[in-house]
Amino acid sequence: MFDDLADFHTWFAERRAANHYEVSAVPVDRIEGWRTEPETGDLVHHTGKFFAVRGLEVGTDHRETAAWTQPIIHQPEIGILGIVVKVVRGEVWCLLQAKMEPGNINLVQLSPTVQATRSNYTRVHRGNAVPYLEHFVAPREGRVALDVLQSEQGSWFLSKRNRNMIVEVPEDPAPREDFCWLSTSQIAELLRVPNLVNMDARTVLSGLPFFHAPELTEGLPAEQDGRPLHTTGQLLSWFTGCRARYQLNRRFVPLAGLPGWRRIGGEIIDEGKRFFSVTGVRVEASSREVGSWSQPMLRPVERGVIGFLGRHIDGVFHVLVHARTEAGTQDVVEMAPTVTCIPASYAGLPAARRPRYLRDLEEAAARGALVDVVHSEEGGRFYHAENRYVVADVGPDFGLDVPEDYCWMTPRQLTGFLRYGNHVNVAARCLLSCFPSAPALATR
Amino acid sequence: MFDDLADFHTWFAERRAANHYEVSAVPVDRIEGWRTEPETGDLVHHTGKFFAVRGLEVGTDHRETAAWTQPIIHQPEIGILGIVVKVVRGEVWCLLQAKMEPGNINLVQLSPTVQATRSNYTRVHRGNAVPYLEHFVAPREGRVALDVLQSEQGSWFLSKRNRNMIVEVPEDPAPREDFCWLSTSQIAELLRVPNLVNMDARTVLSGLPFFHAPELTEGLPAEQDGRPLHTTGQLLSWFTGCRARYQLNRRFVPLAGLPGWRRIGGEIIDEGKRFFSVTGVRVEASSREVGSWSQPMLRPVERGVIGFLGRHIDGVFHVLVHARTEAGTQDVVEMAPTVTCIPASYAGLPAARRPRYLRDLEEAAARGALVDVVHSEEGGRFYHAENRYVVADVGPDFGLDVPEDYCWMTPRQLTGFLRYGNHVNVAARCLLSCFPSAPALATR
Repeated sequence: MFDDLADFHTWFAERRAANHYEVSAVPVDRIEGWRTEPETGDLVHHTGKFFAVRGLEVGTDHRETAAWTQPIIHQPEIGILGIVVKVVRGEVWCLLQAKMEPGNINLVQLSPTVQATRSNYTRVHRGNAVPYLEHFVAPREGRVALDVLQSEQGSWFLSKRNRNMIVEVPEDPAPREDFCWLSTSQIAELLRVPNLVNMDARTVLSGLPFFHAPELTEGLPAEQDGRPLHTTGQLLSWFTGCRARYQLNRRFVPLAGLPGWRRIGGEIIDEGKRFFSVTGVRVEASSREVGSWSQPMLRPVERGVIGFLGRHIDGVFHVLVHARTEAGTQDVVEMAPTVTCIPASYAGLPAARRPRYLRDLEEAAARGALVDVVHSEEGGRFYHAENRYVVADVGPDFGLDVPEDYCWMTPRQLTGFLRYGNHVNVAARCLLSCFPSAPALATR
Repeated sequence: MFDDLADFHTWFAERRAANHYEVSAVPVDRIEGWRTEPETGDLVHHTGKFFAVRGLEVGTDHRETAAWTQPIIHQPEIGILGIVVKVVRGEVWCLLQAKMEPGNINLVQLSPTVQATRSNYTRVHRGNAVPYLEHFVAPREGRVALDVLQSEQGSWFLSKRNRNMIVEVPEDPAPREDFCWLSTSQIAELLRVPNLVNMDARTVLSGLPFFHAPELTEGLPAEQDGRPLHTTGQLLSWFTGCRARYQLNRRFVPLAGLPGWRRIGGEIIDEGKRFFSVTGVRVEASSREVGSWSQPMLRPVERGVIGFLGRHIDGVFHVLVHARTEAGTQDVVEMAPTVTCIPASYAGLPAARRPRYLRDLEEAAARGALVDVVHSEEGGRFYHAENRYVVADVGPDFGLDVPEDYCWMTPRQLTGFLRYGNHVNVAARCLLSCFPSAPALATR
């Protein structure tokens, strides 16, 4: 436990320095331990487990484009993202880990206590046992404050979910090497540092309000300053309407010869170079379960933006939530930030063809954002996938009338849906996790 | 509005008598308007829409049998089951319909205000417009008290969902022919009559508590007499654990030559005649959107049992909920009654091979059940599919330790999960709808 965050930073720099990591690019068709399926060109692990990169054909009436093809990660198994917590001096402390992931900016970031694929904890790739895993598998001793299957990035994963867990332990495990205890207020501070707290930690941390108020969803109308614009029932009706209204059809197609994508320079990239590529990396590490390995990764062409427009409505701060459909969304739509895109993908296009509300977000952020920080996406699958996370107040003159797939709700209402799974997408959860880092939002 | 239920029964008998219906059996391969796909033997509507009967291969680690094949209804579209309600003299009144369905016992049963497949309301089979549909599609005027995508019978439907809605209307629509207003206390009384209130009405009615207390889930711990055994968070953790633990894999296989099933007497039936058959019917009706039609139906071999074991725990009545996997369950498990089976399917088997808790339920019901009534399943797809709906108090000596896929919860907690969709299965919802009909349960 660090009384001062300066001590944390010293410790963290030491952990970074204590281990040697090297990540180098390899061509997608020459990744050790991976093979290209002869019939499809899909990239699969030699065991047939772990994950695969396949081709996907998508048809939907809920995107600008009605149909497209893209590579997608296929990993039909549920991993565990778990944080061990304890209460000390009246505050909640989390056991986090300094963990290397090959796709991370800075390589080492703060991750949950346990971040394990099913392959990990069933030892498919023969690594060491996962530390602290015993707190997240039956029989457990701790009190479970959060336990929900949450979706991962729908643009890059097909229906992938992880089990997000927060478990309060009765005893105080001494931190192993690479682990440390941080208070929630310290974590809030660290969430303002770019590329430090990883995505897996952020998605779990978005559920921390349930630790403090287990019946959070049941507290309405208990907003501090007034009533939300819509009741929970109205929000659910909006969400149900979106799920019933839109279509999303997918089928696997061969990765080889995928229309609109080509192999160039050892990568598979979309012809316009507007979205992302599939690349390969070789990793040498001294501190991971396995000393070295190679794997495919997805690499976005540019930094993205993930942002909520927000405003006060009758004295209560609301954010504008989008019912968003992505290629891999399990059930048509999930609640997403107002804006999710790579702005560079739309460079040179007329304003009407840029993503809705992007300009509003950029303009409001330029006047001063409540949250404005760059974080990385999951460094185990995505290479240098950065997003600018923004919450910007657009002010009281911003119209309340929105298209039918958008809806105003309070951060508390949105958090309430988070524990039912497949309601709040990973971008929205990660953005919610940053709210405590914003003084103007933390008290709401 | 009937001041006396005797008047309702008179009206209902008149509605039954006013129309002429005739349902006759036809062989599955000679259903007018339907064809057998040459490659697969699947039964499909000539338009390619409506629904199909296909073969399904199921593999799971969460049933007595690890793998099996069966016919299943494939209808990948979301229908609407909607009830219009109004408040009069301080009580909620529902607009229900006397509706014929070919599979119904007694043919005519009470159904929701609107019971429409997407084919219905997009006019695929060219019927008349659906009365009162305007209250359930945008733009609507009424207050939405419930709006959730709910699963249908997982044993017979693949991932089928309907949109369950309750809408309070500002004006009082005069009931059309075949429609009537009934108060919730009158409906509670009618739920004690066998085969009168149809499944579609029952599933929607299970959400009526949200009309009275919109934030129902948010009232905990507000049980009248004490605290539930588990918190909402613990129940969700149990449910998440079941979804993460078990596997359910399905793929379509040809209906022709489906292993374990054979065509005999114009039906497709399992070789042991223990489960159900696929049959055909021809319907002549004077009061439906279409005057006559033919269709396939699923016909169970015997009456089933759907039952909750219940007991008081620290003064609070709890039911024993099963996390159940069925062939068509969309997401591995849903919360189900303690017992769901056709007892005759297990006749002659040793006790150890009969469904868990069936004997406890039968014995407790023999001593006096809280709910004990026979209702029909959806008469539009299932022919004479009756279930005995039972809630039986097993008494305070019944052990609280249960297998890991069972969990005690209060009816209020179970109802709370109902509005998030894909949590509470149709059997459990239908059983919950009967709780107000039981004096001992109605006040809880």
